[in-house]
Amino acid sequence: MSGVVVRSIERADPAVIAALGECGVATVHEARGRTGLLASAIRPIYAGAAAAGSAITILAPPGDNWMVHVAIEQVQPGDMLVLAVTSPSDAGYFGDLLATSARARGAAGLVADTGVRDVRDLTAMCFPVWSRAVCAQGTVKKTPGSVNVPVVCAGAPVGPGDVVVGDDDGVCIVRREEAADVLAKAQARIAGEEEKRRRLAAGELGLDMYDMRGDLEAAGLKYV
Amino acid sequence: MSGVVVRSIERADPAVIAALGECGVATVHEARGRTGLLASAIRPIYAGAAAAGSAITILAPPGDNWMVHVAIEQVQPGDMLVLAVTSPSDAGYFGDLLATSARARGAAGLVADTGVRDVRDLTAMCFPVWSRAVCAQGTVKKTPGSVNVPVVCAGAPVGPGDVVVGDDDGVCIVRREEAADVLAKAQARIAGEEEKRRRLAAGELGLDMYDMRGDLEAAGLKYV
Amino acid sequence: MSGVVVRSIERADPAVIAALGECGVATVHEARGRTGLLASAIRPIYAGAAAAGSAITILAPPGDNWMVHVAIEQVQPGDMLVLAVTSPSDAGYFGDLLATSARARGAAGLVADTGVRDVRDLTAMCFPVWSRAVCAQGTVKKTPGSVNVPVVCAGAPVGPGDVVVGDDDGVCIVRREEAADVLAKAQARIAGEEEKRRRLAAGELGLDMYDMRGDLEAAGLKYV
Amino acid sequence: MSGVVVRSIERADPAVIAALGECGVATVHEARGRTGLLASAIRPIYAGAAAAGSAITILAPPGDNWMVHVAIEQVQPGDMLVLAVTSPSDAGYFGDLLATSARARGAAGLVADTGVRDVRDLTAMCFPVWSRAVCAQGTVKKTPGSVNVPVVCAGAPVGPGDVVVGDDDGVCIVRREEAADVLAKAQARIAGEEEKRRRLAAGELGLDMYDMRGDLEAAGLKYV
Amino acid sequence: MSGVVVRSIERADPAVIAALGECGVATVHEARGRTGLLASAIRPIYAGAAAAGSAITILAPPGDNWMVHVAIEQVQPGDMLVLAVTSPSDAGYFGDLLATSARARGAAGLVADTGVRDVRDLTAMCFPVWSRAVCAQGTVKKTPGSVNVPVVCAGAPVGPGDVVVGDDDGVCIVRREEAADVLAKAQARIAGEEEKRRRLAAGELGLDMYDMRGDLEAAGLKYV
Amino acid sequence: MSGVVVRSIERADPAVIAALGECGVATVHEARGRTGLLASAIRPIYAGAAAAGSAITILAPPGDNWMVHVAIEQVQPGDMLVLAVTSPSDAGYFGDLLATSARARGAAGLVADTGVRDVRDLTAMCFPVWSRAVCAQGTVKKTPGSVNVPVVCAGAPVGPGDVVVGDDDGVCIVRREEAADVLAKAQARIAGEEEKRRRLAAGELGLDMYDMRGDLEAAGLKYV
Repeated sequence: MSGVVVRSIERADPAVIAALGECGVATVHEARGRTGLLASAIRPIYAGAAAAGSAITILAPPGDNWMVHVAIEQVQPGDMLVLAVTSPSDAGYFGDLLATSARARGAAGLVADTGVRDVRDLTAMCFPVWSRAVCAQGTVKKTPGSVNVPVVCAGAPVGPGDVVVGDDDGVCIVRREEAADVLAKAQARIAGEEEKRRRLAAGELGLDMYDMRGDLEAAGLKYV
Repeated sequence: MSGVVVRSIERADPAVIAALGECGVATVHEARGRTGLLASAIRPIYAGAAAAGSAITILAPPGDNWMVHVAIEQVQPGDMLVLAVTSPSDAGYFGDLLATSARARGAAGLVADTGVRDVRDLTAMCFPVWSRAVCAQGTVKKTPGSVNVPVVCAGAPVGPGDVVVGDDDGVCIVRREEAADVLAKAQARIAGEEEKRRRLAAGELGLDMYDMRGDLEAAGLKYV
Repeated sequence: MSGVVVRSIERADPAVIAALGECGVATVHEARGRTGLLASAIRPIYAGAAAAGSAITILAPPGDNWMVHVAIEQVQPGDMLVLAVTSPSDAGYFGDLLATSARARGAAGLVADTGVRDVRDLTAMCFPVWSRAVCAQGTVKKTPGSVNVPVVCAGAPVGPGDVVVGDDDGVCIVRREEAADVLAKAQARIAGEEEKRRRLAAGELGLDMYDMRGDLEAAGLKYV
Repeated sequence: MSGVVVRSIERADPAVIAALGECGVATVHEARGRTGLLASAIRPIYAGAAAAGSAITILAPPGDNWMVHVAIEQVQPGDMLVLAVTSPSDAGYFGDLLATSARARGAAGLVADTGVRDVRDLTAMCFPVWSRAVCAQGTVKKTPGSVNVPVVCAGAPVGPGDVVVGDDDGVCIVRREEAADVLAKAQARIAGEEEKRRRLAAGELGLDMYDMRGDLEAAGLKYV
Repeated sequence: MSGVVVRSIERADPAVIAALGECGVATVHEARGRTGLLASAIRPIYAGAAAAGSAITILAPPGDNWMVHVAIEQVQPGDMLVLAVTSPSDAGYFGDLLATSARARGAAGLVADTGVRDVRDLTAMCFPVWSRAVCAQGTVKKTPGSVNVPVVCAGAPVGPGDVVVGDDDGVCIVRREEAADVLAKAQARIAGEEEKRRRLAAGELGLDMYDMRGDLEAAGLKYV
Repeated sequence: MSGVVVRSIERADPAVIAALGECGVATVHEARGRTGLLASAIRPIYAGAAAAGSAITILAPPGDNWMVHVAIEQVQPGDMLVLAVTSPSDAGYFGDLLATSARARGAAGLVADTGVRDVRDLTAMCFPVWSRAVCAQGTVKKTPGSVNVPVVCAGAPVGPGDVVVGDDDGVCIVRREEAADVLAKAQARIAGEEEKRRRLAAGELGLDMYDMRGDLEAAGLKYV
């Protein structure tokens, strides 16, 4: 059960990562075949938080944030810290000092299946964080975990170097090797949506635009 | 179990609806004899969201938003969509395209006992939404439900054409046929509160203003 | 089971209370040996809420806010109302009229292990409130409870006159007799953090600054 | 807001009620078009609890069981008490004395969207109870509610005289006027299931018995 | 923050403890003025679990059960272990080896605001346990906590030597110095209930036996 | 997003699977380095449920159990069905007919991150099921999912052919390729525990048996 730190990981193309971030969570999730979404209990600590980056995964014991310190050394500019736990904990694993350190290394943000603290400072720094809870409860530095191993964070599998996209809708993971393909699908989806948005804004009904009336009748829907 | 869409519903007087909206949820709930409130898990997606309208009710299966498309055709200006589910689901039933379509039809907002997505866009549109969760999880369009039938949404019964009032305190339902009566009581309550607020602001105690001291003593309260 | 109101309580030094408020919840919690924190379900009703004061404790039955009225008479300028319940309730025990009255007496804020309502008004008043829920559900005034007795609020023991510190991270309690000592530790902590923040911002790693590498190796952590 | 007790209610045919009870919750729920089910948080206090009866509905304030006493007077042999609350509460509204009284009047059981207590005694009495919680917390008798008015209990609408069916799977409500029709559908369903059970037990696959293979292929399912 | 173990504690009279156990949780809770009850999330691991004893309190970090080992040394025959945590955790702090050790020292049972494991073994041993969760997740032995200090367990304050009573209804705490007084009240209550139970079983209504009709009318209850 | 069914999967040695089942969940979880445990919300539907088998994984949409029918065709004697969902749902995906069919194919049991129904029948059949909820809510058969793809079930990754062990403590997953190694460690652990149990039962303290006193003193624990 001793921990391990994997120092060398592969990352997706930075341009692809940035473009996925611009697509947003809902679109990326659709483009990935509706997989990769973290549980809806994971929320941004401030409205408007948005980020995308390569996952530096962390697996930590409950109430012990030692591995966050270890993980920050592995951060390269543009990486996102992704913190999973071996047992549920809403203790405050991350606060303003760690955010200062993470930012100095170029971290793009944090996704934590735990609590975080110092949220006023984190907000003032515009350091984007998604977490299960806000909680000032301190943690210890006693038990090793692992860094850059595959984890499950809030119900979604995350591997080191996978692309993490977060915004007001939550967090979605794209596997590194699928990133370019998912981006292409996401951008195609966005292109298609613009025309749909224009037609719907003009008053056309989804029932007509998507040609649903026949299917609804076949499914037995009755108008009275 | 095939679904049904009721096309013709009665609505309350628009002036009454608007006035109920100005009274706010807490006052309307009091004026309605403390009934009609949705569960406190239903929260606005942005601070300051406020709306009132006639309920277009939707009953949908878990993870299936087909009926939202059907319901939008039934919307008249000033209506509020009220989405109930046959089994709990926090999937994202509603996003910016549906909001664009709903707004084009004149919808005043949405109350959803589910998740919603694209909340940054919805906020930018100032399209007021109250929901159980924010979640990007996609839905399917496979199984009919019903529109404009009586539903239970987050613990409260809602009929088509009932008045829906939402603000930062949550959502309250007023039965259509009671709307004018509830408004009168709500406005009387507000009139009475102004004087109370002034006296309390001047330092008078509620204990004296409401004449509670005798009742407290009779109930056995001791000062030590 | 008749209730009791304790009229005379001791309070901590106002300068100490104000200084603890400036330290913030996370720091005070650390300085108090990581005790005194309320459960993370207790959240501020608006971002940026911050306050510190002496606890006026309230123990109330479920759905009954009579004792809040009683408690307000006991408020002295700078006090914080702390509302505990004998059985869980998310009803709306506190709204704008009570806030008006509490402010007129000088109350610094409210911590409630219940629901509150009129949150738009409370926000507009900048009256800081931390609560378990926002809920418009009305309460009754039928059953006495107690004021200024020791209570457990959201998992933390609170005595009358204890110092209550709240901010975006939640709420922490400091026992009155420990207040000066906790403040000294909190200020020492803050002094030490400034240098750490500067070093971390310059790119130094926590691993080095806290000299963790040896301990991690001893604990079995492997780099691969 | 003063309460009301409706003394005269209509009930379904006792033979129909008994037969619905024998069908069980899952079958009755299906026969009613998949409506009427209470939230899954409502659980029996002992394995094997099963009952069916006519609803005596109770609407009570949080933490106040006065109306349960009032309701017991309205019980006729074979009735089921259905306890809803105006605001969530897991206090112990019902225990062995009330069960003794309810049984003396012929009550068939209790469904409570609250807590109950004395569960060892209730179990020893074989008095079937479904509740949201087991909790010894006492209640008061201070505020009237209503008896035999329409309520929403754990998300399901219940009217006085509706048929309540409970077993290990939870609780389902059948509207009084639909009871005979639902029973006919439930019995037809059971008749059909016997043959299905026999075929499945013999190793036939649901895929074949329900002729699903074509639909699955049409829906795009691939075997690899 | 280093931990402390208090070796010498006072206990209540064993005869009083045993008699409180026979009264049961609901009655003891009433006799103690409706205080001292743990949150209803704390449930026995098997139906019929019942115990009473003197509290050996444990305050432990999340996911760390080192202090349970320390506490067992402090157990005297008839004591109950009461495990509180500094931050929520449902890890499995206690299993069959610890139960074997605790029983060898004479422990009467365990109340844990955490998870426990090996519940089949614990059940077979008839070792009564009340816990927040059943969870096999292992714990570490890295961080000291404290033994026999005042704690808050599942919302209730517990001091070392306080009397702990558990049964199917949950767990109630009686302060050591109040134990004899609470017992007297509990026994008086039981004596009074026997007559009430007989009268209710004979069909007398609580409305009459408790003489409630006048109060109900005064409170505005209407019969229609 | 069309689904896929993988027909050919590898399984672990049946003798290893059976032996892992005899070790039990807590021991297997320890032997696997404290990984693989499902969330504690997954509970057996009856006390004493115990099973072990090879995972037939199912990924299903919310409220749609079509894929369970598909999966049963893939069952070989001794397999365990493991049902994950793309979005949370506590609908009743599985009942007595499916259990009859699954048993006819030799299924050893079911683990479902959903609700199940007909629990009295399932219990009478001694068909072991672990689920998140008991709920009679019906499901549809409209949207394909997948069978025998990697899934995350209640927070744990599960691949087709992985070993699933369930008992009263919950459910633990062992990767197929690690099964023999984990078994060896589990059996070694059990062998070691027998001697420990004997010594603890004889009154020896864990503090001495595990030689903890020095470490506790070094960690700063004080006895007073």
